[in-house]
Amino acid sequence: MKVKLPYLLQPYNICHFVDSTFYIGNRKLFPKEKSFVTCTNCQQIGDCLKMMITQGGGPLQVALTSFRYIANEMDRYSIPFTYKSLETEILYIVNARVTNTTMKRCVNDILNTVKPRFLDSLFTPTDLLILINILVDKIENDFDETYYRMGKLGSTLIKDKDTILTTCFAEHTLLLSLYFAQKEGKDIRVLVNETRPYFQGTRLTAPSLKELNIDVKIISDAMGSFFMEKKQIQHYMSAADLVCMDGTVVNKIGTNQNAICANYYNIPYTAFSIAPDLAKESYEDIRMEYRSPSELLVYNEEYIGDSTIGALYPAFDIIDPKLVTNIVTNKGILKPSQIRGVFK
Amino acid sequence: MKVKLPYLLQPYNICHFVDSTFYIGNRKLFPKEKSFVTCTNCQQIGDCLKMMITQGGGPLQVALTSFRYIANEMDRYSIPFTYKSLETEILYIVNARVTNTTMKRCVNDILNTVKPRFLDSLFTPTDLLILINILVDKIENDFDETYYRMGKLGSTLIKDKDTILTTCFAEHTLLLSLYFAQKEGKDIRVLVNETRPYFQGTRLTAPSLKELNIDVKIISDAMGSFFMEKKQIQHYMSAADLVCMDGTVVNKIGTNQNAICANYYNIPYTAFSIAPDLAKESYEDIRMEYRSPSELLVYNEEYIGDSTIGALYPAFDIIDPKLVTNIVTNKGILKPSQIRGVFK
Repeated sequence: MKVKLPYLLQPYNICHFVDSTFYIGNRKLFPKEKSFVTCTNCQQIGDCLKMMITQGGGPLQVALTSFRYIANEMDRYSIPFTYKSLETEILYIVNARVTNTTMKRCVNDILNTVKPRFLDSLFTPTDLLILINILVDKIENDFDETYYRMGKLGSTLIKDKDTILTTCFAEHTLLLSLYFAQKEGKDIRVLVNETRPYFQGTRLTAPSLKELNIDVKIISDAMGSFFMEKKQIQHYMSAADLVCMDGTVVNKIGTNQNAICANYYNIPYTAFSIAPDLAKESYEDIRMEYRSPSELLVYNEEYIGDSTIGALYPAFDIIDPKLVTNIVTNKGILKPSQIRGVFK
Repeated sequence: MKVKLPYLLQPYNICHFVDSTFYIGNRKLFPKEKSFVTCTNCQQIGDCLKMMITQGGGPLQVALTSFRYIANEMDRYSIPFTYKSLETEILYIVNARVTNTTMKRCVNDILNTVKPRFLDSLFTPTDLLILINILVDKIENDFDETYYRMGKLGSTLIKDKDTILTTCFAEHTLLLSLYFAQKEGKDIRVLVNETRPYFQGTRLTAPSLKELNIDVKIISDAMGSFFMEKKQIQHYMSAADLVCMDGTVVNKIGTNQNAICANYYNIPYTAFSIAPDLAKESYEDIRMEYRSPSELLVYNEEYIGDSTIGALYPAFDIIDPKLVTNIVTNKGILKPSQIRGVFK
């Protein structure tokens, strides 16, 4: 891909390693600090994922880079050269984020490919390192091409003079869609929901768009409908943490109310997802994650209000297919009702 | 009124004075601190209102108490005993919040009543003090009775087992409605939007409901539709900063998206307003206030994200009458379409 990605999406800034030290870009401190958390084994890397040091597409990149790291450590004899060791180490990372099915699928593909090679008595740690690097290079290139293609597709949905509303941090596919739309000469603006309680909109999306020279302004999570009513938003776009086979979209809490308001004001809502989860038929198959109420009640380690009053924090919204105008996938721009036919 | 009001609504805690020192309850620090800002003249009191030390119904209470304060100061000879002085002093306060038409109306009523008395050469500062206290007592009692009556009306809209969603700090009328509903034996719960950027929901509404022993939980401004979809909210209720003659409601930003979602999920939306603004016919007559973007970008004097990226902060939402189920007024529970007929 020839696009210079914003800081947060550059693979080196998501994670990298030097000898036995693994560095994970700390999204929790960005943009105040561009710093890395250092790990010296896979357990520590898994713990970082649990603590959300990186999130969104970050854990997938961490898992792929960890394969290179483990193979390298085997070549340096810090980890015993057995299939069992390889599997044990990588599972520390995969199991840290159980809902990320893309990461699990990629990791299993690699494990299944390398497993039989360990039966060959001439197979050396250096052979493993070369094989892993080839496999991971291939996967990374495939993802880059998919992101690029989906970005190109997404850009066709954006019109000249459009202002796009987005929520949370939609990463490659939305950022590239906006980037390509602007490069094609379209005059665009973006409004970003700040995205409480972690402020991913304020901290991750807005600075990344600014790096791409896209006109961006922050609004609170309560303001989308205000600007829709004034015809100052022409399209609502978000990532999708999950798409069901019936076109149901799961994404960051706050997406649903924007989708309902977009529908009310006749504004299209487009979600980006490489592919649906073939195992999830519809709404009923979704398990909702509730996070700690303290994330909503505390800022900078200090209670905003009365520490004895509780909160509720469902992490995701479930968006009815009838509120979704388009789903941009690796198989094209689809209507929710087309997902099952195209992917099964 | 026999109800023990929560801390924030007790007149002494909104404001009071001792000799020449005027104390204003600092809502910006509540509930972390229950402290007062002290003023020694009316200019300082006006400045406190501009700085939003108190807000919502607070400024009206401050204006009424300031009349007592000014008359007292005239009696102590700190302010010259002339009508012009009285008017000049009180205008420092009224002009601090130009949009609060209720405050302006009350102040003008008092000024018009006392003005002719100054022509009487036997009229003394002590006479003024007695007269002002009688007039202000009457207005305060009228408001108390109105709040009580509207609270009783509001409580009839709340059903047993209802969970009510609310936004920002709706003060007396909503709090009393919830209080009376619970007292009548109804089992109720309240979800409060935290209300960015000032967190009035987290800091003011939630602690006040807790004082009234009402089951309250905080949610972010993005979560209303999540709980509506799960049928865990039965009624959306808010104050109204302004009601137009055609039933258009103006209230804190975030109210509109909740009203749209309530409509989508067939949940009633009720707004509380003593009376409409007779001078405002409809949407077109509303002037929108945009506040400083920094309020959204900075918390505890520190930027949340990148300080070079801007924000937009419209202060209020305008809610279409067709999204409003009920408006609780001092003349009863009305449909938006009934407002003009009842009040003109």
